[in-house]
Amino acid sequence: MKRAERVAALIKILSETPNKAYSLKYFCDLFNAAKSSISEDLQTAKQTLQAVNLGVIQTTPGAGGGVKYIPYISDEACQQLQKELCDKLCDGNRILGGGFLYTSDIMFDSNLVRQVATVFARKFQEKKADYVATIETKGIPVATMTAHMLNLPMIVIRRESKISEGSTLSINYFSGSSDRVQKMSVSKRAVVPGSKAIIIDDFMRAGGSVKGITDILAEFDVEIVGTGIVIAATEPQKKKTDNYCSLIYLGKVDESTKEIEVFGNCQIF
Amino acid sequence: MKRAERVAALIKILSETPNKAYSLKYFCDLFNAAKSSISEDLQTAKQTLQAVNLGVIQTTPGAGGGVKYIPYISDEACQQLQKELCDKLCDGNRILGGGFLYTSDIMFDSNLVRQVATVFARKFQEKKADYVATIETKGIPVATMTAHMLNLPMIVIRRESKISEGSTLSINYFSGSSDRVQKMSVSKRAVVPGSKAIIIDDFMRAGGSVKGITDILAEFDVEIVGTGIVIAATEPQKKKTDNYCSLIYLGKVDESTKEIEVFGNCQIF
Repeated sequence: MKRAERVAALIKILSETPNKAYSLKYFCDLFNAAKSSISEDLQTAKQTLQAVNLGVIQTTPGAGGGVKYIPYISDEACQQLQKELCDKLCDGNRILGGGFLYTSDIMFDSNLVRQVATVFARKFQEKKADYVATIETKGIPVATMTAHMLNLPMIVIRRESKISEGSTLSINYFSGSSDRVQKMSVSKRAVVPGSKAIIIDDFMRAGGSVKGITDILAEFDVEIVGTGIVIAATEPQKKKTDNYCSLIYLGKVDESTKEIEVFGNCQIF
Repeated sequence: MKRAERVAALIKILSETPNKAYSLKYFCDLFNAAKSSISEDLQTAKQTLQAVNLGVIQTTPGAGGGVKYIPYISDEACQQLQKELCDKLCDGNRILGGGFLYTSDIMFDSNLVRQVATVFARKFQEKKADYVATIETKGIPVATMTAHMLNLPMIVIRRESKISEGSTLSINYFSGSSDRVQKMSVSKRAVVPGSKAIIIDDFMRAGGSVKGITDILAEFDVEIVGTGIVIAATEPQKKKTDNYCSLIYLGKVDESTKEIEVFGNCQIF
């Protein structure tokens, strides 16, 4: 293989599995090339990604070291994504009554959630989490993409305990949105006690779900090291949880004029 | 930018958004380069991906044309993935009773479901589908990744109709697994009538869910052009649906000896 081809293949392989460390030897064997050549190729690969602002190739020296790709989204690209989401969200036809908005088209758009996930991956890259945790249903796609970018397994908390989950641990929690007690349940096999998790969810009003997830995982001594929400309502101001970051804020929803107040979180990083 | 850097950046950008067509002009502007240079770069990019068997760059000429990346998994890589899944699945500790296996660790492993999704993307690339459809919950990650690879929106069918889904259409269907009538519901906004969909799900026993999804989408005149299942049970042999392809077959599960019969579908392509 020629130089240009090796560099391109390196970037393709590394970026396909973000945050997964490969040894230099892996690429030496794959390309049948000397370590010195691969090192030079990696240097070019790094510069390339830097030039187009599409992620970072990180080399960790030493025995346990290796080379891996770390996803990145620039501040400008993030602002552009926020603008795109706000433009979509402020459409008055989304209003469902009771202050609810229809957002499934956004949360089930794989290209949009991939970009949102890149924001969360950048935000939580350094948190040394073991899991991405979410609760069914609408947050699962963005959690899946975030888990992919951080190379982490997911904990998907269920509303009802299912036979296919084996032994489960359940809690009752108070949902601020629906103003009633709800249940959530997690498979005991899904969690290694004492680990760290990032919570990812599609929407937060009062923060009852996030508090519930925090509480149920606390039963396994799991520490929450970050919470990423796609859309957070500005009201109520007082949430059941403090430490969260949302990509978009949802303000007043006026059912009569069909006006929706929505804006990006400019302090996300 | 140098040649090698442009080629690598091209591959990175194209493969980040599979099946999305870019104009040649887009790259000319991005790299500030002539069309002839970009055409040469694309040629190198194509050869590179071919050499490492990691997808195809396709150029469509003409006004509506453009260049796009098409994901690919080789027969060998698919067999290796099937072997990896079988090795994981045949662990006797997965047996939950009633013939059920614990599979959430697999279905919520973003790296594994990404590879499974590449198989389905290769399988259904030419089907001209408009949607990837699934039913909550465990099939959502693999459906998300498949939708990402095919650049399609998802239809996520719910068990219960939710206020956040707006007007919904519901059906009752007979689930062979649980031997009872269940309900599924889909948001009317989620589906454009007369379109085509691929069904992706994590598990099939008798095929009741897939038949249910087919029926509920038929209410919108949606044609099912393919069905991809991660794990299909060999029993019952007679399913409620015919046209499906599964990556893995699950045979006898012996609760007393803890033996699990599991094998890859060698005719998936």
